[in-house]
Amino acid sequence: MAEEKGKITPQAQDFPQWYQDVIREGDLAEVAKVVKGCMVIKPHGYAIWEKIQADLDRRFKATGHKNAYFPLLIPMSFLTKEAEHVEGFAPEVAVVTHAGGKPLPEGEQYAIRPTSETIIGHFFAKWISSYRDLPLLINQWANVVRWELHTRLFLRTTEFLWQEGHTAHASHEEASAEVVRMLDVYGDFAEQVMAMPVVRGQKTDSEKFAGAVTTLCIEAMMRDGKALQSGTSHDLGQNFGRAFDVKFQNEAGREDYVWQTSWGVSTRLIGGLIMTHSDDTGLILPPRLAPIEAVIVPIHKNDAERSTVLSASAKLRDDLRVAGVAVELDDRGGMRPGEKYYEWERKGVPIRIELGPRDLESGAAMTKLRIAEGKAKMPLATIADDLPRALDDFQMFLLERAKKFRKDNTVTIDTWADLLAVFKEGESRFAWCHWDGTAETEAAIKEETKVTIRCIPLPGQGPDPAPGACVKTGRPSAQRVLFAKAY
Amino acid sequence: MAEEKGKITPQAQDFPQWYQDVIREGDLAEVAKVVKGCMVIKPHGYAIWEKIQADLDRRFKATGHKNAYFPLLIPMSFLTKEAEHVEGFAPEVAVVTHAGGKPLPEGEQYAIRPTSETIIGHFFAKWISSYRDLPLLINQWANVVRWELHTRLFLRTTEFLWQEGHTAHASHEEASAEVVRMLDVYGDFAEQVMAMPVVRGQKTDSEKFAGAVTTLCIEAMMRDGKALQSGTSHDLGQNFGRAFDVKFQNEAGREDYVWQTSWGVSTRLIGGLIMTHSDDTGLILPPRLAPIEAVIVPIHKNDAERSTVLSASAKLRDDLRVAGVAVELDDRGGMRPGEKYYEWERKGVPIRIELGPRDLESGAAMTKLRIAEGKAKMPLATIADDLPRALDDFQMFLLERAKKFRKDNTVTIDTWADLLAVFKEGESRFAWCHWDGTAETEAAIKEETKVTIRCIPLPGQGPDPAPGACVKTGRPSAQRVLFAKAY
Repeated sequence: MAEEKGKITPQAQDFPQWYQDVIREGDLAEVAKVVKGCMVIKPHGYAIWEKIQADLDRRFKATGHKNAYFPLLIPMSFLTKEAEHVEGFAPEVAVVTHAGGKPLPEGEQYAIRPTSETIIGHFFAKWISSYRDLPLLINQWANVVRWELHTRLFLRTTEFLWQEGHTAHASHEEASAEVVRMLDVYGDFAEQVMAMPVVRGQKTDSEKFAGAVTTLCIEAMMRDGKALQSGTSHDLGQNFGRAFDVKFQNEAGREDYVWQTSWGVSTRLIGGLIMTHSDDTGLILPPRLAPIEAVIVPIHKNDAERSTVLSASAKLRDDLRVAGVAVELDDRGGMRPGEKYYEWERKGVPIRIELGPRDLESGAAMTKLRIAEGKAKMPLATIADDLPRALDDFQMFLLERAKKFRKDNTVTIDTWADLLAVFKEGESRFAWCHWDGTAETEAAIKEETKVTIRCIPLPGQGPDPAPGACVKTGRPSAQRVLFAKAY
Repeated sequence: MAEEKGKITPQAQDFPQWYQDVIREGDLAEVAKVVKGCMVIKPHGYAIWEKIQADLDRRFKATGHKNAYFPLLIPMSFLTKEAEHVEGFAPEVAVVTHAGGKPLPEGEQYAIRPTSETIIGHFFAKWISSYRDLPLLINQWANVVRWELHTRLFLRTTEFLWQEGHTAHASHEEASAEVVRMLDVYGDFAEQVMAMPVVRGQKTDSEKFAGAVTTLCIEAMMRDGKALQSGTSHDLGQNFGRAFDVKFQNEAGREDYVWQTSWGVSTRLIGGLIMTHSDDTGLILPPRLAPIEAVIVPIHKNDAERSTVLSASAKLRDDLRVAGVAVELDDRGGMRPGEKYYEWERKGVPIRIELGPRDLESGAAMTKLRIAEGKAKMPLATIADDLPRALDDFQMFLLERAKKFRKDNTVTIDTWADLLAVFKEGESRFAWCHWDGTAETEAAIKEETKVTIRCIPLPGQGPDPAPGACVKTGRPSAQRVLFAKAY
């Protein structure tokens, strides 16, 4: 389908096209084309990523982690040291075979990191010798490359930006607690900052990270009913400790392999943000991730009005900035207010403030939320208090709206016929179903319907655990798990 | 020379070894070894980079630039589009020839970006069509790879972290102004934040960026008298505009190529920071880049003292944090105060606060600057005011000390014999000399002495311009230029 600049295809008509249109019209990113499967993250998209980074980085540091940086290039031999890991990642790797004008010798070729467990494991082995060196809590902000066949802006690109936490612990208990702690950091961030409700759960063995003992995840519902895996936290057991010989002397004086974890979120979150909140008018940003929370559009008909309105607008901007609002004054000449409204709506700015001579006379500005029926007056005398509150309310509103959407689109299914009906061609919901716990049944369901098990819910994240019969085979099941089509 | 943990070789004995020792003992970084020429930036080193990033990023945004992100991989064909650029960078490029388990077709191989003028030029051509799209002011924080033969931690590594600004303008005048503006941003940052005085100048043609019309630079003196090129700002003219067909319609309605600039600083700055300030005891950090500005070491002999001192120390830490000081309380058990002092000195913490029962009784803490003869008392009642002032003074002291060192090691040379004497084996200074302006003379001097022209000073950055005779050939020269050995 040809892209038409200026046009946003309705969600209901063609969701994937709607998604692309929102990104183009919001000026967030574009497909690189000349570099297979890669994207350019444009300034407005990158500014959202910077806000995501800043908030998460603060949370990582508050939980005791420190940032570091490890090489982009990984010796090919490292990837093969952990058997499941190489099976999972080798087919996706980009390989450097020539450098400095010469071919590299066979044993000295490098993979561009698809993830860094291996190279970090190598250095952990050098840094850790005693229980006193543990826990070692490291995070890295980096780019990674995975050669994907089917790519989509933000959701799956050959190169993407992410953070990867890597930690080493003296016991499995401590490592497990870290895995849960970081899943909670992700879950809280998703809900409190992205206003994106998530189900926290555990991946089935066939969906877990290549090399992990268990993988926990957060799963969010997009506005087409599909699930987006939005963050993962892995219990690596001693798998990489063994592969990279990361040993330590424990308090009793005995040598043991360390227990490791890794966890990550990526620029994929921006895709989740778009598909959780945006509408047929374009992008909608929750205030906590909006690079611009409010925009002032001055209204004036002649030069005299212009001068009065612009100076009042500049004062309002300054007052709001002092109040902590990320506000911009759009004083561009040669554009009608309507054109400006249109542009800022497409960029997802949460609140617009219109200020004209009549507003100044009445001592109140007209404000318009990105989603709201009408406009509201805000007295200029109190706007520096009222606006931050309005932004907080809007943040809560988006979360509640997303929760309601998810509730309305979540079902409990007990029969195969019902499952087929709910997941008919092109449709998805969240469905709580019994499953017999086997990889065979999981694969058969996926093969027939494209529906996958998103996760086995953690306590409190799904229906109360109660035994039942598998929706596909009728065999016994201990609890319902979450089924959905997924990105 | 074998590395000896715990030992710092004196500067005067072996400067390169001293540099490595300071990095190792300060726990800043280490050579990756398993990845040719790469380094691991450890948490303390990375925390310095984060402070550098935060300050520069604020300056870039304040001058109207926006961050974006472009692909890591660049089609090989792009590099060849600008003739001088390919000559400069092709020999250093790492090439991806295999991906997704298959060889890439000949024309679809990728270079890992050594710098991004080419790929960004490609996108500028898509984004710019009219003078209304200009100026376009973009910055990117990224990793780059250049296959270097001789590498050294921070100063020259195969992969390094940097920022690269890329801008497009409607006229050469505007582009030139941008080149100077960003050099000023770098110069101010170096002096005000790094406490590292710099000479601002223009590179000779043989030292300029591959593809630039002119390159401006800042050059700093290290404590061995050598120069470190610490940042560059390039006037690209219309070279990349032509190579990538970046055209715009000007106000008069005629088509023209855009005028571009690029500018960058990298993790090399950390090397400059180390070699500007540190001493035989280890790292010294200027407060504005110190991840930890002050550390409190509690002194206690028994449990009763311990409890009183620790609670007073915690209160002091909290008070200082409220006053904006990045302070840590080192309450680790099982370590003598002296061991703690030693560790924090090696990590370059600007000020240490000792707090024991007698200090609490007298109502004052003992403080010790990272460089100072003795200790000073600071009353606890006023320390929240006094300490930030002491840190500011220390910042100024480091800058003045570095300026004095540079002054003491800068000479004016008029004869070839004097130049040979100043730059004898293993020695360097900054030398202002006349030069006949030819690449031949420049090359002959470099060949014979390893001394290079660091820059032709901008107005006010060197001796007043006055004609003279070339130090090597005796031919006429318009002004003195800066000679030094360089990293």
